[in-house]
Amino acid sequence: MANSLIVVGSVAFDSIETPNGGVDEALGGSATYFSYASSFFTRPRLVGVVGEDFPDEHRQLFASRDIDTTGLSTQAGGQTFRWKGRYHQDMNTRDTLEVHLNVFSSFNPVLPEKFRDSSHVFLANGSPVIQARVLDQIKKPTLVMADTMDLWISTMHDELMELLPRLDGLFLNDSEALLLTEESNLIKAGQAVRKLGPKFVIIKKGEHGATLFSEDGVFVIPGFPTHEVVDPTGAGDSFAGGLMGYLCSDDGPPPGRLRRAMAYGTIVASFTVEDFGLGRLKRTTRKEIDQRLEAYRNMLAF
Amino acid sequence: MANSLIVVGSVAFDSIETPNGGVDEALGGSATYFSYASSFFTRPRLVGVVGEDFPDEHRQLFASRDIDTTGLSTQAGGQTFRWKGRYHQDMNTRDTLEVHLNVFSSFNPVLPEKFRDSSHVFLANGSPVIQARVLDQIKKPTLVMADTMDLWISTMHDELMELLPRLDGLFLNDSEALLLTEESNLIKAGQAVRKLGPKFVIIKKGEHGATLFSEDGVFVIPGFPTHEVVDPTGAGDSFAGGLMGYLCSDDGPPPGRLRRAMAYGTIVASFTVEDFGLGRLKRTTRKEIDQRLEAYRNMLAF
Repeated sequence: MANSLIVVGSVAFDSIETPNGGVDEALGGSATYFSYASSFFTRPRLVGVVGEDFPDEHRQLFASRDIDTTGLSTQAGGQTFRWKGRYHQDMNTRDTLEVHLNVFSSFNPVLPEKFRDSSHVFLANGSPVIQARVLDQIKKPTLVMADTMDLWISTMHDELMELLPRLDGLFLNDSEALLLTEESNLIKAGQAVRKLGPKFVIIKKGEHGATLFSEDGVFVIPGFPTHEVVDPTGAGDSFAGGLMGYLCSDDGPPPGRLRRAMAYGTIVASFTVEDFGLGRLKRTTRKEIDQRLEAYRNMLAF
Repeated sequence: MANSLIVVGSVAFDSIETPNGGVDEALGGSATYFSYASSFFTRPRLVGVVGEDFPDEHRQLFASRDIDTTGLSTQAGGQTFRWKGRYHQDMNTRDTLEVHLNVFSSFNPVLPEKFRDSSHVFLANGSPVIQARVLDQIKKPTLVMADTMDLWISTMHDELMELLPRLDGLFLNDSEALLLTEESNLIKAGQAVRKLGPKFVIIKKGEHGATLFSEDGVFVIPGFPTHEVVDPTGAGDSFAGGLMGYLCSDDGPPPGRLRRAMAYGTIVASFTVEDFGLGRLKRTTRKEIDQRLEAYRNMLAF
């Protein structure tokens, strides 16, 4: 059976303010960025929920990328999840101005039957209870990865602890890794998170790149040094999408595969931040991604 | 004529508090860390000033590393520069608790005649006026690099602007690069600093590594992921010392040489932070440095 990648997460309208402009109600959400990013490598399956206000144009965009939206349900009478945020001058920190979960507040996905044979599973950031329920519905996954955040670490700690041993890989950002492990050193934190269950752990450091902790040791990758940071929204999910999309498409032997996947994730995310929303990803191609990957490899060689 | 490396900067007693202990009046200062770090690669020449309270034991330590202290003068009746600082829980930020410049406040070095033929020059962090005066005394330097800081950018802007075109390379940290160029993006900032005169610019990002901007483009190097960060004091000067020490010892063709030098600087700095003061550097060897460099190279490969 061929590999198949499923993502379960949010589809949202993002309104974003930055020191250099903004955008209103752009298509966003974790499952959107993840699936779009992974579509350069595979044909992802998207599971999410939207309201009746979700325009056909967005569904067509997913279709144009061969993203299977059979699992994107529309809640009658509901409104799509909306988020509004403002980035600070340095573009590394932001304030959330408004959150309207709307239909996402009761998101409790039942996977389409034809999605249950997925080999690669990404549980985008969400309650660990929902993440576990999604995982229960996958028959025989070969690679399960999840994202989490400080909210769940603080408020659903026990449920998260139960989920972690079921994961192959966990994504989390640097401050979350410190919070979860009560360490103050990131390398110790990454190693400590592995002891909680995941076979490998990827700590995301924004513009500073990411660090992988696995049985093969530590792998570090800096961010791609782009000089056009227009909107960092979706960078983390694009990184995960590029990474898992690549893994789904490559049956080569580990561990080189996971490292290449980290590099692809980094490159896809570097395109994401170069425009608002999906703007820059819409204008790129697998060929341009591969070219930037080669430039990046040269940029790191010594 | 063989290459020779000179450093002009501070020699100090550092008192350091961290969440995991501290140290009183440890030998420190920019010229100390730089010369010790570079001594794994070459025989550096040190120029600085200390007070009558400077113990013989420290001079012997320099001598044991073949550091030429002909330029380390003792000011009669004076006290050595003292600094006291406290690191925060994350070890990335610190508060300065006390600064007593003492003999360093009137530091205006006259170089020993035999140092004036130095080929490689490091102007450690200090007033750009003093840095320029030092440079005036070098007959025919082949590589001049300097470090600077926010204080000089703000208070001696014009003098710094006059110095920059005389430099081959400038070190500065990320926030200082943004301050100097009024950019908010680090890649744009690095490129903008080059336009102010230095042939190449190295932006230091602490645990996140460093970025080089040169005519060959951008080169990025992450920090070595050490899990033992005991005391970050001196990491930047150790990085510069390892880097310039290596450059002084390698006559290979550019640009690979500068990249290798960045890697060596990163590795030497990774040892520095693993203990207070010079503690860890004193216990390492060129062989151990080379071994960690190879581990690091593998850690970055994809």
